[in-house]
Amino acid sequence: MQTKPTPSYSVTIRVEYPNIIGMLGKLTSTIGEAGGDIGSIDIIKTTKNLITRDITFSGTSEKHLEHIIEKIKQIKNVTIKHITDKTFSVHHKGKIEISLKYPIKSREDLSMVYTPGVARVCMDIYKHPKHVYNYTIKANTIAVVTDGSAVLGLGDIGPEAALPVMEGKAMLFKQFADVDAFPICLNTKNPDEIVHIIKNISPVFGGINLEDISAPRCFEIEERLRNELNIPIFHDDQHGTAVVVLAALINALKIVKKEIDKIKIVISGAGAAGIACAKLLFYAGVDPAKTILCDSKGPIYIGRKEGMNNYKEELAKITNKQKIKTNIRDALRNADVFIGTSGPGILKPEDIKNMAKDAIIFAMANPIPEIMPEEARLYARIIATGRSDYPNQINNVLCFPGFFRGLLDSKATTVTYEMKIAAANAIANLIKPSELNEEYIIPSPFDRKVPRAVAEAVENVVKKLKLKKT
Amino acid sequence: MQTKPTPSYSVTIRVEYPNIIGMLGKLTSTIGEAGGDIGSIDIIKTTKNLITRDITFSGTSEKHLEHIIEKIKQIKNVTIKHITDKTFSVHHKGKIEISLKYPIKSREDLSMVYTPGVARVCMDIYKHPKHVYNYTIKANTIAVVTDGSAVLGLGDIGPEAALPVMEGKAMLFKQFADVDAFPICLNTKNPDEIVHIIKNISPVFGGINLEDISAPRCFEIEERLRNELNIPIFHDDQHGTAVVVLAALINALKIVKKEIDKIKIVISGAGAAGIACAKLLFYAGVDPAKTILCDSKGPIYIGRKEGMNNYKEELAKITNKQKIKTNIRDALRNADVFIGTSGPGILKPEDIKNMAKDAIIFAMANPIPEIMPEEARLYARIIATGRSDYPNQINNVLCFPGFFRGLLDSKATTVTYEMKIAAANAIANLIKPSELNEEYIIPSPFDRKVPRAVAEAVENVVKKLKLKKT
Repeated sequence: MQTKPTPSYSVTIRVEYPNIIGMLGKLTSTIGEAGGDIGSIDIIKTTKNLITRDITFSGTSEKHLEHIIEKIKQIKNVTIKHITDKTFSVHHKGKIEISLKYPIKSREDLSMVYTPGVARVCMDIYKHPKHVYNYTIKANTIAVVTDGSAVLGLGDIGPEAALPVMEGKAMLFKQFADVDAFPICLNTKNPDEIVHIIKNISPVFGGINLEDISAPRCFEIEERLRNELNIPIFHDDQHGTAVVVLAALINALKIVKKEIDKIKIVISGAGAAGIACAKLLFYAGVDPAKTILCDSKGPIYIGRKEGMNNYKEELAKITNKQKIKTNIRDALRNADVFIGTSGPGILKPEDIKNMAKDAIIFAMANPIPEIMPEEARLYARIIATGRSDYPNQINNVLCFPGFFRGLLDSKATTVTYEMKIAAANAIANLIKPSELNEEYIIPSPFDRKVPRAVAEAVENVVKKLKLKKT
Repeated sequence: MQTKPTPSYSVTIRVEYPNIIGMLGKLTSTIGEAGGDIGSIDIIKTTKNLITRDITFSGTSEKHLEHIIEKIKQIKNVTIKHITDKTFSVHHKGKIEISLKYPIKSREDLSMVYTPGVARVCMDIYKHPKHVYNYTIKANTIAVVTDGSAVLGLGDIGPEAALPVMEGKAMLFKQFADVDAFPICLNTKNPDEIVHIIKNISPVFGGINLEDISAPRCFEIEERLRNELNIPIFHDDQHGTAVVVLAALINALKIVKKEIDKIKIVISGAGAAGIACAKLLFYAGVDPAKTILCDSKGPIYIGRKEGMNNYKEELAKITNKQKIKTNIRDALRNADVFIGTSGPGILKPEDIKNMAKDAIIFAMANPIPEIMPEEARLYARIIATGRSDYPNQINNVLCFPGFFRGLLDSKATTVTYEMKIAAANAIANLIKPSELNEEYIIPSPFDRKVPRAVAEAVENVVKKLKLKKT
């Protein structure tokens, strides 16, 4: 289903060939005919007889790249000197590093940042524990913690293989909101141990971003940490997704002119994201009775036996008042909104046909959505996915960097529903009424206004909470 | 005893005073007369009537700085606008941060460093676990782990108050050897828990530097981690100190023309550093029988009851063949070398008088040595301390950055005595025979050749070990 070439399958080949007219054309047309998308072409060296170039192109898969390279090898007189896979080369020895805020140039510098001067700062924190926020990295540093059990769509690949994702996340935190994030990949999947370890490494961190921990363990881990630590805990797969979904929904409802408390929603997927979306939507005004959660066994209803857990039971009590038990197609009858946090291709165009007028489809399974936009378009009015190559990308990066910026700047000790609602509204409101349309319900991840708006929204909630307390 | 002004007690004051001749002279002489050492003087603003300047000066203590400021306030027509304490201001919100090796400028970048491209790298590591060293920060990142139980000379100040020291250490790792080090400050002092936590966070790290963990727990923790993890473990307070002491001793013995296997050594302090020094020195050829370890209860000997632990018992069996039981003064009779890793002022000049000819004194207690060089000089030939304001500073920073550089570059899985001996020799040999003298037995921490030489020494040992195995 991945049909367009993507930069994530991109190589640079160094080729050497006779310095005669027509050779470059032959090369580029070979790549193009094989389906490759050519990026930059650089000259490395020319002599009277030979020319050396670097040609970067992307394909749709590893197999596709191999196929293109095979075709190039078949061109007479062209030699491939070497091949660099861009994605792997940007990962060489990791993507983040530690930097000094001040260089140590002299003994004087050394005696301030280290012994003996540092002892004064240590004793100040010892006497005034809150000063740890003034004089250490705790002021701006969070941990991105995973056990590697539910990494992207890849599943339980373990802590080492999860590390490139956590480093990527740390990059996004820094780039979009100047938050220092450090990856912690745990060699255990036991919730007791995970809670115990995070509590014991917490002195260095001003917040904890839980990441790619499988449900239902992620719920228990988050809840216990919230109760036992006084720094904010945020499981991005749950709350980051929920905030951005709510933002997109707020704007989509403006277009179709429906009220949030009157709509019927079907959520596909009852893992971390699905359950968190349901809860936040209810908090934002969606009627639980008109909401149906589905998992791989079909709709969740009170009394269902198979594949349940405490978290699903809890939601079964308040949702699906119609008691639809059969399948997602029946659940979708007359629904206004479909939210997919499940798997590829589970939705058919006919399922959407049965939905209410002006159907809204958020098909967020990655990389292949519950239904491709080309098919959904037949019956739905508004379509969003998790992909960057279609309009309306529902991307967590719209939330988490700014959200933690706000938490850190306001010295929040916990995360509340008010903050998430405020963040969702802030994201939604960045699109002016005049700009809003079916293909633009959510800002771009590269819109610089986003993190600042989210941070301010979170900070304002913290300020109000603090005012209430005093 | 801290008699000279030091940059670790340094302030910048912003003063405003009438723009008339003689005022600056009055200001600087006031600071000088009060014992302050003036650094930079900058003009901030001048008007016809007023002048504003920043004056930086240092004192000997916080009290001393307050005294100088009081004197300045007494000068007529001088107003102090504000005071900045330089040591505290360089600590503002911490001294290190996370940086991106590549900026994320476009969707293309994003799709390589994060989803969907990152998934290819994850799956590669999942299939080939060793590739975690090719494509993640594990290649160049270590943890600086403490429980805050024995921080500098400050004792058990806890994990938060220890953090500025760990950040300082991380700065040194980066500045001197381009090693990425991240501070982990643990909220537990239980050795079982510490071992368990470090094991479980180890996937991200290529090595563990233990720091400021009190003896004897530090020995057990290190030993267990060495056995249970396949990344190198290095407790700097032990081995960093021991390596640099051995380096200094090698050079000192060249000057006094004594053989390492014939000398008598007294070590004061049987904590992490003292015990590690003893063990490394024995490995390097020092005769244990001629060595006496002393702690706060006096010499350690076989059968001593008070204040013993397993580690002291072990050394009691092989050291102090003379069975000196009384005190350090008696132990020092005819000794060639004194190594102090204990506390301030425990040595009197008369104690040194009883030592052998050409006595060598390493008085490393910080910030106040076992004996001040001015006093030791009366009877000793070679004196080293831990301080930067006297010749021959025995500073761990000569060892740990380069040592870990070597461990990481050679993908060492453990730390051996051979590596420590090689590192000590590498440090010692950086001083040419023609340069070597009583006041120059050890290179400066800012000598750029040091980390490279130490790293190469460690790498060569690893290479030899690997050759042996094949």
